[in-house]
Amino acid sequence: MYRSHTCGELREEHIENNITLSGWVHKTRDKGFVVWIDLRDRFGITQLIFDEERTSKELLEQARSLGREFVIQIKGTVLERASKNANIPTGNIEVLVQELTILNESKTPPFTIEDDTDGGEDIRMKYRYLDIRRNIVKNNLIFRSKVSMEVRKYLSDGGFIEVETPYLIKSTPEGARDFVVPSRMNEGQFYALPQSPQTFKQLLMVGGMDKYFQIVKCFRDEDLRADRQPEFTQIDCEMAFVEQEDILNAFEGLTKHLLKEIKGIDISSFPRMTYDAAMAKYGNDKPDIRFGMEFGELNAVAKHKEFNVFNSAELVVGIAIPGAATYTRKEIDKLIDWVRRPQVGAKGMVYVKCNEDGTFKSSVDKFYDQEDLANWAKVTGAKAGDLICMLSGDTNATRAQLSALRMEMAERLNLRNPEEFAPLWVIDFPLLELDEETGNYHAMHHPFTSPKPGQLELLDTNPGAVKANAYDLVLNGNEIGGGSIRIHDKETQATMFKHLGFSPEEAKAQFGFLMDAFQYGAPPHGGIAFGLDRLVSILGGQETIRDFIAFPKNNSGRDVMIDAPAPIDKEQLKELRLQLNLES
Amino acid sequence: MYRSHTCGELREEHIENNITLSGWVHKTRDKGFVVWIDLRDRFGITQLIFDEERTSKELLEQARSLGREFVIQIKGTVLERASKNANIPTGNIEVLVQELTILNESKTPPFTIEDDTDGGEDIRMKYRYLDIRRNIVKNNLIFRSKVSMEVRKYLSDGGFIEVETPYLIKSTPEGARDFVVPSRMNEGQFYALPQSPQTFKQLLMVGGMDKYFQIVKCFRDEDLRADRQPEFTQIDCEMAFVEQEDILNAFEGLTKHLLKEIKGIDISSFPRMTYDAAMAKYGNDKPDIRFGMEFGELNAVAKHKEFNVFNSAELVVGIAIPGAATYTRKEIDKLIDWVRRPQVGAKGMVYVKCNEDGTFKSSVDKFYDQEDLANWAKVTGAKAGDLICMLSGDTNATRAQLSALRMEMAERLNLRNPEEFAPLWVIDFPLLELDEETGNYHAMHHPFTSPKPGQLELLDTNPGAVKANAYDLVLNGNEIGGGSIRIHDKETQATMFKHLGFSPEEAKAQFGFLMDAFQYGAPPHGGIAFGLDRLVSILGGQETIRDFIAFPKNNSGRDVMIDAPAPIDKEQLKELRLQLNLES
Repeated sequence: MYRSHTCGELREEHIENNITLSGWVHKTRDKGFVVWIDLRDRFGITQLIFDEERTSKELLEQARSLGREFVIQIKGTVLERASKNANIPTGNIEVLVQELTILNESKTPPFTIEDDTDGGEDIRMKYRYLDIRRNIVKNNLIFRSKVSMEVRKYLSDGGFIEVETPYLIKSTPEGARDFVVPSRMNEGQFYALPQSPQTFKQLLMVGGMDKYFQIVKCFRDEDLRADRQPEFTQIDCEMAFVEQEDILNAFEGLTKHLLKEIKGIDISSFPRMTYDAAMAKYGNDKPDIRFGMEFGELNAVAKHKEFNVFNSAELVVGIAIPGAATYTRKEIDKLIDWVRRPQVGAKGMVYVKCNEDGTFKSSVDKFYDQEDLANWAKVTGAKAGDLICMLSGDTNATRAQLSALRMEMAERLNLRNPEEFAPLWVIDFPLLELDEETGNYHAMHHPFTSPKPGQLELLDTNPGAVKANAYDLVLNGNEIGGGSIRIHDKETQATMFKHLGFSPEEAKAQFGFLMDAFQYGAPPHGGIAFGLDRLVSILGGQETIRDFIAFPKNNSGRDVMIDAPAPIDKEQLKELRLQLNLES
Repeated sequence: MYRSHTCGELREEHIENNITLSGWVHKTRDKGFVVWIDLRDRFGITQLIFDEERTSKELLEQARSLGREFVIQIKGTVLERASKNANIPTGNIEVLVQELTILNESKTPPFTIEDDTDGGEDIRMKYRYLDIRRNIVKNNLIFRSKVSMEVRKYLSDGGFIEVETPYLIKSTPEGARDFVVPSRMNEGQFYALPQSPQTFKQLLMVGGMDKYFQIVKCFRDEDLRADRQPEFTQIDCEMAFVEQEDILNAFEGLTKHLLKEIKGIDISSFPRMTYDAAMAKYGNDKPDIRFGMEFGELNAVAKHKEFNVFNSAELVVGIAIPGAATYTRKEIDKLIDWVRRPQVGAKGMVYVKCNEDGTFKSSVDKFYDQEDLANWAKVTGAKAGDLICMLSGDTNATRAQLSALRMEMAERLNLRNPEEFAPLWVIDFPLLELDEETGNYHAMHHPFTSPKPGQLELLDTNPGAVKANAYDLVLNGNEIGGGSIRIHDKETQATMFKHLGFSPEEAKAQFGFLMDAFQYGAPPHGGIAFGLDRLVSILGGQETIRDFIAFPKNNSGRDVMIDAPAPIDKEQLKELRLQLNLES
């Protein structure tokens, strides 16, 4: 038996007990006549004491010889601690050691195992197994495990069945790139790893499973933007005999449960906003509503003077930045430089200082009088002391630019409190999205998303205006879940495929088995999928998903710890009937 | 709202209620003046009634027009049923329909959606989504979900953390063949899909996670024997600071919990048997101990006469088949033919009938007298009325043959009761296994399995005799779990690699990152992995794992429903820098 207690367990009630502990040497303090060692395991830290009076010379020497991260077992007696440490749960006791066994030695780790480590990201990823010993990473993984378990409990209790869908499936040319897996038994053929279990969950609905969920790995072979992973985890859900309202209620329930169980936060009901409203008010389909700075559309009050920049613009729009009227000319110039960065892309910015005395000072005083500026303040909700920032141009681009500025200012003003949680349903997404390059429409969500009732006819006349039974759940400015009510009848599906530019043959080749299935009594159904990595990181009050993944990959899709991917044997390639073609 | 209740929910207390149901038309009975429809969903079946007195003519006609598996919604009133059906929970009521909406039509399904279907395996697999509508498959999937949930609850409550390990890892030439995944971003390089998260769970122990588990898909590109799947699910577990006894206790606890929660069966403690004893008593390292027929070793009492077959054999061994003394000559000849089949491989069989009058009649009466035969009966535990079957030859082969006969006779005599559960720990496995072709030893479990204390020295002199800290959990003759205490110090690991024929360079190339990790304070650790597919099928009282997998693959590794694997685009191959080489 390696231990009678963990290193986080001993309290005053254990005083005088003889105990056995095992763990890592976290820290040693040697005062000459006395040596203290902090012994660490997953559960906590216990202070060990060796001293000249009560410890044999040999044992004291042995204690002194221990290096950082050595694994040891000790037997000893629990004593009351002279100078108590209120910061740790075991801080009232210490253990006088009678016996010490080195279970394993350790080389000096390449970085310190501390909350505030001296190791950079690269070295910590290479030695991720040491990084995991750090409280912060360890606690993130425990937190993730807890969130997953709560999701499973809630959904199981609600009658959802977790069904495992296959990982070795079929490649479809649609959407993002698949990872493929050559088959040895079926020469020249390939499996694909699922980008999501979408078709399988719909088949389960055809199969009458009624309420399905799965926490499942998904795979996308995309060029990785920062904080994307080639493999990621989804909470995948689908329900039969439901309308949009049923889905929103069910998964609002799940999210409330998580906020309550995990964070102790009660939210009575989640606000809802249409996609159009979100774009108009926040320039963004996943608005962070923890803070204001809502957009004021200024066309009506800004296009009546000689200022050509505004007059020629499709949209003039502004936000009021709280307390920023005191910005110096230099600070404002910096802000203008910021919005003109290529990543943001604005051509310029008009500003209005709302002075404390009720007057206004703007960069366009030449064109507009105090009454105009007062109107702008009214529309943007600016108060005395605020700075109004205005952008203008094409509607979509301008909104995106102002959204970027809004988020940047929220960061600078510390308005994005990670311990505040503001969920929001965004509903009524457009069904189709125009591909600006090809001029074709494609499905915004996926080709099985149903249009809103009565809008099917619009497909012929104004496809971009058709709204879908599609919804996203947004939390603190992040899309944490999204889904739709699916098309379940074959006429609507055929109409959709036509508008997406699929010939019946192409549709059959690509989605044949699902369309076949739909001929045998598919029930009305719909679902949602949550990104677990993102959900967990936001609930954890952080925004980097990598910190909540045990063994993440870097931006080149590499696992630097195990050094994967890697070349494989010629023999292996030969068995798979493959040849590398690196020249072309 | 598609339904106010499910089809399994209505009882007498709902009589007179107006309700809405949705589901599939399971069966229609048309008696002319009255039409009954069984409406089905996941939760049950509710009888709908339409009749000339109370139903409009149009509605009655509509009801008559419905085909099997049409999806409908009805509104109606709950009535007491005239002739009650005690076989279903809703059998006391029926619903008089006032309104009927066809939600979706259905082609006639290719097989009947009944427990006793007319569809063969092939057609059911092609239309698996319809097969899932059948009670038997649906209930298997629900059962699997429940088992997984109970595993998670038990382990979470016990302080285990579920950690997701990566699916895109690195290929290792050891063991079974990996499925590989070409990387587009890292040209000419491949990921591999994990055969198990073995190294990652050991790294998590080095990382101090202490108690880890994961229910996880694993992949093996092996030629598929019947009832093997290229992707399968494992309950993967690892603990730090443990000895074998700790692991056996922890996972005996889990298995007891499952037997209790899922099957309502209490088993106080699991018997344990060494590998050597299992081989001697049952000829098998996963003995089914639900029934007797233990081996009797007969060398001592059978090698003293002129019968050369026995005298020249390394082993003479027999079992007593209960009640088989009445077998005719013809029946016994058939049994001898059975053991001589190439799949079994015995050269012949000696038998002894233990007559009810206390006399014996054997096929070797020429050589042995009644006293000899009485001794054999004693050793094999044969009683009056039993038939002793004896095989002889090389120890290993003979044991395997007799084990096959024992299992066959248990099947024939109906001794393998699927509702009886007999768990067994098999312990003290050999560390190494001789590869008869190459004459080399390789790790029986895997190269990180630790030898039993004090046996390391034997590696040089008698490697085949070294026992390991390795254990299997056997349930009803199936290995449902297996694991070991790992080597955690580098000297032992180096010795092991040497004996497995790895040069230090080879060991480094293959297991480098794990060996590196072990230099930074690896704790003593060990673990176990359960095959979930197998565990669930045995708990479900069945032996075919395919019946407990939503979308299984066939023996050629194909998913016949989605028709995968399949060829991929030339473009896709080009992006992956691959070329097919089907000629060679």
